[in-house]
Amino acid sequence: MQSGTNLPRVRDYNQGVVLDAIRVGSGISRVEIAEQSGLTAQTVSNIVRRLLDEGLVIEDGVDPSGRKPRIKLWLNSEARYAVGALLDRDEIFMALVGLDGRILARAHRPVDQQQGAMGVVSQIVLATELLVTESGVARDKLVGFGLGCPGPMDHDKGVLYEPLDLFGLNWHAVEIKEALHQQMGLPVIVDNDATAAAIGERWLGGRQRSRNFAFIFMGMGIGAGFFIENQIYRGDTTNAGEIGHMTLNPEGPECFCGSRGCLELYSAPSSILKSLRQRLQEGEKSSLQLANLTFDRIGQAAQEGDELALEVIQNSARMLGYGLINMINLLDLRLIVLGGRYMRHVAPFYQAEIQKIFNQRLLTRNVRGVDIEISIAGEDAGAVGAASLVFHELFSARLTELRLVP
Amino acid sequence: MQSGTNLPRVRDYNQGVVLDAIRVGSGISRVEIAEQSGLTAQTVSNIVRRLLDEGLVIEDGVDPSGRKPRIKLWLNSEARYAVGALLDRDEIFMALVGLDGRILARAHRPVDQQQGAMGVVSQIVLATELLVTESGVARDKLVGFGLGCPGPMDHDKGVLYEPLDLFGLNWHAVEIKEALHQQMGLPVIVDNDATAAAIGERWLGGRQRSRNFAFIFMGMGIGAGFFIENQIYRGDTTNAGEIGHMTLNPEGPECFCGSRGCLELYSAPSSILKSLRQRLQEGEKSSLQLANLTFDRIGQAAQEGDELALEVIQNSARMLGYGLINMINLLDLRLIVLGGRYMRHVAPFYQAEIQKIFNQRLLTRNVRGVDIEISIAGEDAGAVGAASLVFHELFSARLTELRLVP
Repeated sequence: MQSGTNLPRVRDYNQGVVLDAIRVGSGISRVEIAEQSGLTAQTVSNIVRRLLDEGLVIEDGVDPSGRKPRIKLWLNSEARYAVGALLDRDEIFMALVGLDGRILARAHRPVDQQQGAMGVVSQIVLATELLVTESGVARDKLVGFGLGCPGPMDHDKGVLYEPLDLFGLNWHAVEIKEALHQQMGLPVIVDNDATAAAIGERWLGGRQRSRNFAFIFMGMGIGAGFFIENQIYRGDTTNAGEIGHMTLNPEGPECFCGSRGCLELYSAPSSILKSLRQRLQEGEKSSLQLANLTFDRIGQAAQEGDELALEVIQNSARMLGYGLINMINLLDLRLIVLGGRYMRHVAPFYQAEIQKIFNQRLLTRNVRGVDIEISIAGEDAGAVGAASLVFHELFSARLTELRLVP
Repeated sequence: MQSGTNLPRVRDYNQGVVLDAIRVGSGISRVEIAEQSGLTAQTVSNIVRRLLDEGLVIEDGVDPSGRKPRIKLWLNSEARYAVGALLDRDEIFMALVGLDGRILARAHRPVDQQQGAMGVVSQIVLATELLVTESGVARDKLVGFGLGCPGPMDHDKGVLYEPLDLFGLNWHAVEIKEALHQQMGLPVIVDNDATAAAIGERWLGGRQRSRNFAFIFMGMGIGAGFFIENQIYRGDTTNAGEIGHMTLNPEGPECFCGSRGCLELYSAPSSILKSLRQRLQEGEKSSLQLANLTFDRIGQAAQEGDELALEVIQNSARMLGYGLINMINLLDLRLIVLGGRYMRHVAPFYQAEIQKIFNQRLLTRNVRGVDIEISIAGEDAGAVGAASLVFHELFSARLTELRLVP
């Protein structure tokens, strides 16, 4: 069923539009905002007044003549802060960020799986407390906490359902949003790691990330976060973007998810490690050694020209390329952003190989191209993204929020 | 960049919401519309007044007491008409439909590819003229013409770019919208066949199709049309939904699209025909004969218990199931609708086999199910959908249309 809209919803939405224009435009005038947004000068002026009053925006450019100058507007990065945490299988990455998405303080710690879900919650709460204290940020400016982690989950309720990449934790229907909120006393938002990364990339990326894109997040698994029609897309049950379990061969090897031939079996960091280990055991030549093999070492070796390392990464990238083509054929997106902690050393290799695959096989390769870019947020994408969840919820222009009945 | 909204946009959108509620609710009161849409009674009342004045809606239920009765509202199916045409490789299917999506007249004709793009345009114009004349519908109530055809295309401009499934026509950048408009003197909308079918299914399907869904359209090729967040989804260049060219095996056989192992190579009607022909030539037992093999005959044989026919269809369905799982993992949809002309005899076989695959391999099979339903519009989905494009454009509540700058 469709829902209507009304004036208060419109007011909130238009405020989001203006704030977005200021964030992206960074030094933009009221006139320019009106031109870009289609809003009248009067509406823009009223909204900017409100944003100035709330301290979210700052202006400069005094005009001594008294004529109407093009005063420029900026986001006040110190007006609000949020803490974000990205939960991966073995580690947690945290960031305290300002309203512009820039990091003021970061931390990362191992996750002790033995303590169970509520033990991990306590670890997160403690780490957040330390981070805030060390940063010296005023507590009344801290507007929320965001958690990014693997799905499946219920984003709205903040419940995790046996996250695929946290199997070791043996979690089932963990009400993590409520638990974190109880212990922190802050608004909490829980989202899929790749979706969080996409939001972080957008929040930090300014004009370069003001288009639609799919963020390909390479953690222990591979996920996708989507901006489509300039809005975050979460799907019917807030579990969109599971590209890592795209079947690329129905008769392929079994995946722990219960299917076969999933993309992660060919492209995830763990698969790259496995493949390289095997080839070293078979005696292939490489500067890498079996004893201390890590994904980061493989990436560094590739950068230094190790052929085996490069080949294994290119194999991974090629399969990811096929998966991305399937995604693009379905969603018709024109920008792919590569990021996440395991893209650190290897993103350019992935970018080059995927471009090659696109040139060969993309359905519309003769009609229009698809850009492949490397994340601006980089390896911080997950943690910054988790923090940005809070800003996105509070301040962004969301079309779906125009609707009266959710 | 984000765009703002304003009151006229909100008014149009809310009118679409109310009309949608009346179409879906079929015999709904103003009070019920207000409850469902979140709009105030006053707003609903004003909009209904406007819709009654325009003749789009009819009401009944006079209350002699003078107290406020729950007068019921219906769509006035005879208020407006539209003609739609679905262009496939070898045939064109046409329908003249009323505002409720019901068919008043239909036609189908072979397409003569020898005449080129503009020759086909003339064939369509002539066929439309005949259909309208024969139906006896008043010309001033005819509000537009919709064309559904294979992509890639530019939906907004109505330009076709070498449609993959119309290769025989050797088309390149055909401005078909403008050509049809010039010759018909009617507003024309051109859209992807599967997207048109999805819109038709929604327009005709009432309450049963008021959720998000992916319409899987089985013509000569396989396409998907999406309602996501209750809105049609077309993608960045209006070419979303190309599930037929999803790679299910990167090392698989070459596809005419330039890629390998595409879904259509395993699941499209032409592939089923090819596979059955081969197995008959190898001497396998079947009630079917090589001499007069058609896809429809294969479907009928399967219905009558022919094991070879059934097996070949199940093989197609299984691969389609894998493709749908990939789609669901990405988009997180909970309803799949199967339709299009080649689903006529075989939809229940596909439904059963896909269900089996979902139970085995869907990532979230233990958390939540995905429904698979058979099209309400059935084999008319394409033509009805093409006509519904016009109604959808004129009368539906589209969130993206709230935005001031497109």
